[in-house]
Amino acid sequence: MICLINKTEIDVRYQETDQMGVVYHANYLVWFEIGRTKFIEQLGFKYAELEKENVVSPVTDLQISYKRPARYGDKVYIETSLKLYDGLRTIYAYKIFNEENKLLVEGNSTHVVVKKDKFRPVRLKQINSEWDLAYRKVLNGEM
Amino acid sequence: MICLINKTEIDVRYQETDQMGVVYHANYLVWFEIGRTKFIEQLGFKYAELEKENVVSPVTDLQISYKRPARYGDKVYIETSLKLYDGLRTIYAYKIFNEENKLLVEGNSTHVVVKKDKFRPVRLKQINSEWDLAYRKVLNGEM
Amino acid sequence: MICLINKTEIDVRYQETDQMGVVYHANYLVWFEIGRTKFIEQLGFKYAELEKENVVSPVTDLQISYKRPARYGDKVYIETSLKLYDGLRTIYAYKIFNEENKLLVEGNSTHVVVKKDKFRPVRLKQINSEWDLAYRKVLNGEM
Amino acid sequence: MICLINKTEIDVRYQETDQMGVVYHANYLVWFEIGRTKFIEQLGFKYAELEKENVVSPVTDLQISYKRPARYGDKVYIETSLKLYDGLRTIYAYKIFNEENKLLVEGNSTHVVVKKDKFRPVRLKQINSEWDLAYRKVLNGEM
Repeated sequence: MICLINKTEIDVRYQETDQMGVVYHANYLVWFEIGRTKFIEQLGFKYAELEKENVVSPVTDLQISYKRPARYGDKVYIETSLKLYDGLRTIYAYKIFNEENKLLVEGNSTHVVVKKDKFRPVRLKQINSEWDLAYRKVLNGEM
Repeated sequence: MICLINKTEIDVRYQETDQMGVVYHANYLVWFEIGRTKFIEQLGFKYAELEKENVVSPVTDLQISYKRPARYGDKVYIETSLKLYDGLRTIYAYKIFNEENKLLVEGNSTHVVVKKDKFRPVRLKQINSEWDLAYRKVLNGEM
Repeated sequence: MICLINKTEIDVRYQETDQMGVVYHANYLVWFEIGRTKFIEQLGFKYAELEKENVVSPVTDLQISYKRPARYGDKVYIETSLKLYDGLRTIYAYKIFNEENKLLVEGNSTHVVVKKDKFRPVRLKQINSEWDLAYRKVLNGEM
Repeated sequence: MICLINKTEIDVRYQETDQMGVVYHANYLVWFEIGRTKFIEQLGFKYAELEKENVVSPVTDLQISYKRPARYGDKVYIETSLKLYDGLRTIYAYKIFNEENKLLVEGNSTHVVVKKDKFRPVRLKQINSEWDLAYRKVLNGEM
């Protein structure tokens, strides 16, 4: 039922490679971050605006499987979707493909919203009720 | 039964922080890498030497849970151990603590050894039989 | 007389910030790299292709001045031009602007082409004579 | 007359390499940062403490020359000294050597102290008069 998927194209940066001749494994987490930023923008919100409310949204759990390496000179495509949202936790799912549509990497990340000073969790609804509503709609297949 | 644990101290680098005021989540993967490099050195081997055999050892799966953030100015301690080794796959487990011995992050990563040109898997034993033996001993609690 | 300038837009990545709340100073070097990659592509060449000839093009000198910080959520614009090319050395000049057209950073980087194994310099003409010719034309204002 | 030099050892991280097979050029800036952090600590101060005064110390200019590449598996040594301090600006000089004492990289960076909110410059003396005094002594060869 969940159908909203954001597709974002990324050019592999030389800086993202390591001496294995492929993209360094931690850099896919940066691409995940770009994917969820664009997913959020597609819904009409901006993560940068959220932080102006004195909250941040750290990762609490992350899982990633590496199937094929991305290389410098490649374009890659990241597909981001919402897997779970319960008001406190948000789980995004990611798939990264190359130009031949071969799956390179898949994974997911769990996030909470916390006060910037003490890292104490708050409900997204208290910070931005429209965003909360949008995520509920996405999960119900209404967006 | 498995008892070999490498403990390595790391000074948090300013560059490792982000505007959340804490260490950027992908950077813990770099610390995991330092942990397993030191674990390997503690056994008498060097990953850099392995790559001279024209093989590399990419990550195939990685899982990480973030409990508390590390901050610039902190010293952190990474504990690395061997969770599984079957000749083809190696799984390392990691725990990162702060100076008050509070758990910040835990996770594990799965690795294979592949030929550098085609990323085709090979058995570690074919590349370095002593290393293979050492890992079997560690798993049996003999080291 | 030199007029070819490549303009490339970059979205600031969260990962590129540090706890100062702005883009970490070393990351502008990554943007310089993106700028020269796009400059090269605008001329019809690809740096990734050059490396297939078993050569690489390291930086030998770099100078950068920071005027104003870039922040997460900003779009920035990098302008890259060719400042010098003598067959052996290439110097690129960069200016990075924000959306209000305020100058954030300016700098330049010097590059040579070297054999990948020994880092011994070679003339670009020996590797790719069309590229050599294009750079001479750019410097003469013919492109 | 200036004689205080901090020497700090750094193990090259795998993550710091790129597909050229050497340390990515922007990463030397991170090592410069480690060098000046240690230089400051050698004088009895901590940069992390300075930021608690609601000021930060961004780089305003940086120059770097690359002589020889550092590689994974190497230990490198960074020598940091104070080149200039006038109350507002501080210039640090850096030299990075390998284990054979060959010079890999040299450079310098200029810093100011600014209020974190508006990036307006302040005199170091207003924030930390002991630190200001120590830097004057170092420049006079008294430390």
